[in-house]
Amino acid sequence: MNTLSNAGEDSIIQTLTARWPRCSGRMLHGVGDDCAVLSGGSTKSVLLFKTDAIAEGSHFLPTHPGLKIGWKAAARCVSDIAAMGGKPLSAVVTLATPQTTSVRRLDSIYRGLESCADAYSFTLSGGETIASQQLILSIAMLGEAPQNRVLLRSGGAPGDHLWVTGKLGGSLRGKHLTFRPRLDEALWLAHGQLATAMMDLSDGLASDLPRLAKASRCSFDLFLETIPITRGCSLEHALGDGEDFELLFACSPKASSRLAAAWPFRTELTRVGVLTSPKKAPTLLPTCGFDHFKKR
Amino acid sequence: MNTLSNAGEDSIIQTLTARWPRCSGRMLHGVGDDCAVLSGGSTKSVLLFKTDAIAEGSHFLPTHPGLKIGWKAAARCVSDIAAMGGKPLSAVVTLATPQTTSVRRLDSIYRGLESCADAYSFTLSGGETIASQQLILSIAMLGEAPQNRVLLRSGGAPGDHLWVTGKLGGSLRGKHLTFRPRLDEALWLAHGQLATAMMDLSDGLASDLPRLAKASRCSFDLFLETIPITRGCSLEHALGDGEDFELLFACSPKASSRLAAAWPFRTELTRVGVLTSPKKAPTLLPTCGFDHFKKR
Repeated sequence: MNTLSNAGEDSIIQTLTARWPRCSGRMLHGVGDDCAVLSGGSTKSVLLFKTDAIAEGSHFLPTHPGLKIGWKAAARCVSDIAAMGGKPLSAVVTLATPQTTSVRRLDSIYRGLESCADAYSFTLSGGETIASQQLILSIAMLGEAPQNRVLLRSGGAPGDHLWVTGKLGGSLRGKHLTFRPRLDEALWLAHGQLATAMMDLSDGLASDLPRLAKASRCSFDLFLETIPITRGCSLEHALGDGEDFELLFACSPKASSRLAAAWPFRTELTRVGVLTSPKKAPTLLPTCGFDHFKKR
Repeated sequence: MNTLSNAGEDSIIQTLTARWPRCSGRMLHGVGDDCAVLSGGSTKSVLLFKTDAIAEGSHFLPTHPGLKIGWKAAARCVSDIAAMGGKPLSAVVTLATPQTTSVRRLDSIYRGLESCADAYSFTLSGGETIASQQLILSIAMLGEAPQNRVLLRSGGAPGDHLWVTGKLGGSLRGKHLTFRPRLDEALWLAHGQLATAMMDLSDGLASDLPRLAKASRCSFDLFLETIPITRGCSLEHALGDGEDFELLFACSPKASSRLAAAWPFRTELTRVGVLTSPKKAPTLLPTCGFDHFKKR
């Protein structure tokens, strides 16, 4: 029997959503990017729409503070809205929880949601609470972006340089609960029309880069020696740990030199590769036998 | 220790969301109604935003067909959007599922979502899938309404007549999986500016009417003998079963006579009570000793 465990999440999502329209009526871009894009009430801006969920045992533990769990749940969505070049507007929260969970713990989780809403200027607009066997938080977020500045995964072209913000790997040491979505950096990139394609790194560069390249109908070369690695981590951690919530984006060679000179943030910015012709196989440089991609 | 099981859902939600603003920036109405209301890109329309979830074991059983489970999950949100006088635009879906669930069953659930999207003209715009111990579907829906036609729970006044659509009770015999949200009826009421306050009946009249009355700062008289009861059900079922997904609305006495004459639908329409001064205690007429409200 074909199940989620033996078919793989990407494959299942593709199967389940294969019939969903990618563009229909008010929906300009459907499944397949960090957020859906919907036409807004004006011609100047579009709405971004996203759902994301975290579960106890998978994304956080019973020992983690509620404040950090709430922050994480909301910040993951902010990161997705940012990765499209948008600002978060509003979130609604589904809390599925065992009936034995203390109100104090739930309140702490909600305070974490609130601290993220304060930090990133969106409103918590509605909630749903249901009894369940396992604590799960599902957040849906609405954002907004200027119509001509939305950054899709599909806008890259062969020759575009690939950049990442921050350092990669080691998220389980704590960063997965405390990361700061790169909203300012993403808005600066979108406003300056410097990036051609963008996404946030939620599953690790080794999983996410092939997604961006595929959406842009490109292949890629990845420069292993330049990848910014969190102190104490290995290259494998940087490629595969996931939950970095850094930005991965493509940028034309011409814009790349402007980008490097004008980057106004303390956040590290590193060129890690290049998009190539779709006829070429993805290449890890130097070709050192590192086979992380093949294992997936 | 204070937990969800001993404090009650309404009380917990109030505690958890007490700090959330009811009105802030683009958010015109926050928690406390069927949907949140956000200002849209134009001055003519507003956005409605809602999240809702169903869990296996509580809202559906492993023996229920996936098609009906998907329909139910989406139709519950449509009912909430309708109850505000809006049309659904777009939904995003969080599927939390045990890894042993067959892809065939998940596909059937997704076909149920799609049939609801087709029937009510909204798009399925994005999805999130996570592994969990229990099958849970959380749907967030975005809708739209003309700015001056949004129907809140809080618009009622003493003297307004109370009406319900359809028949109440007995949802567990099957209707909870197959109900048709009263979208056309709700849009007609909103367009004609006939209702002063409206909500959908999800928890049963005995729970929901006090919520509408409280939001409108009113008390109420309920005419027990007029309540439209599903064939084979008792009054207690009609008051308490929940998951009717019928409309409950208030209407001025003057508009009530127009309403009854002009109602163009085959859907039954019944006057079940009246909003009264908040100084009066809620009254069940005839005062027959039925104490369903007191037990809650």
